Amino acid sequence: MKPIGRVESPLTDPAAAPKQGDEGGAAAWILFDPGVLDGLTDTTPGDRVIVLTWLDRADRAVLRVHPRDDPSNPMRGVFSTRSADRPNPIGLHEVEVVAVEGNRIQVRPLEAVDGTPVLDLKPVL
Amino acid sequence: MKPIGRVESPLTDPAAAPKQGDEGGAAAWILFDPGVLDGLTDTTPGDRVIVLTWLDRADRAVLRVHPRDDPSNPMRGVFSTRSADRPNPIGLHEVEVVAVEGNRIQVRPLEAVDGTPVLDLKPVL
Repeated sequence: MKPIGRVESPLTDPAAAPKQGDEGGAAAWILFDPGVLDGLTDTTPGDRVIVLTWLDRADRAVLRVHPRDDPSNPMRGVFSTRSADRPNPIGLHEVEVVAVEGNRIQVRPLEAVDGTPVLDLKPVL
Repeated sequence: MKPIGRVESPLTDPAAAPKQGDEGGAAAWILFDPGVLDGLTDTTPGDRVIVLTWLDRADRAVLRVHPRDDPSNPMRGVFSTRSADRPNPIGLHEVEVVAVEGNRIQVRPLEAVDGTPVLDLKPVL
């Protein structure tokens, strides 16, 4: 697993970041590694895409959680939740491409914080 | 990245497997690693989930493809396609949970072939 790029976002505090993009996600840039730019040639403003991220601050040993970090929610197995804490903390973010400029694209709304590694970009089917 | 389980499917030939689940995907089992079973406790038949797989037969050096392996389709950057060949070949499969039995669940329709490593399972939002 090798990041293809990184998130540049005004969101910097994981504790304050929204849990889902539509709960206050920001317009954010994704900077692509120069070595993968040929893969970006047909990405266009207006596209709806799924950004896959590696949530590098997550706790990979966690298997049960209180959903939404709310202790009043009964514990659940992580595979029935969208918790970032899970064995392979891959984030899925459905966003719109707003701009494409050289080696970077702007997308929104994205809840991933600044510096988050990006693993892949796929069109919404 | 550590697989949490593997696909058990009647689909064994990658060349003959459908490109998307709804194009002839099979009912398939996912066998979970005993070490992650606590994460599966609240997964229930009828759930709609996204299975994340590692497409281990993919060519990770590919950045441009003819979509759907059809040479008559103009070449496109892989990030605007669902090609399995891409730098981080993570498959996303939206399926329904059909059965839950101990350390395995049955899902459908899944186009991933037998033996494919599974990375994660998330509810559809």
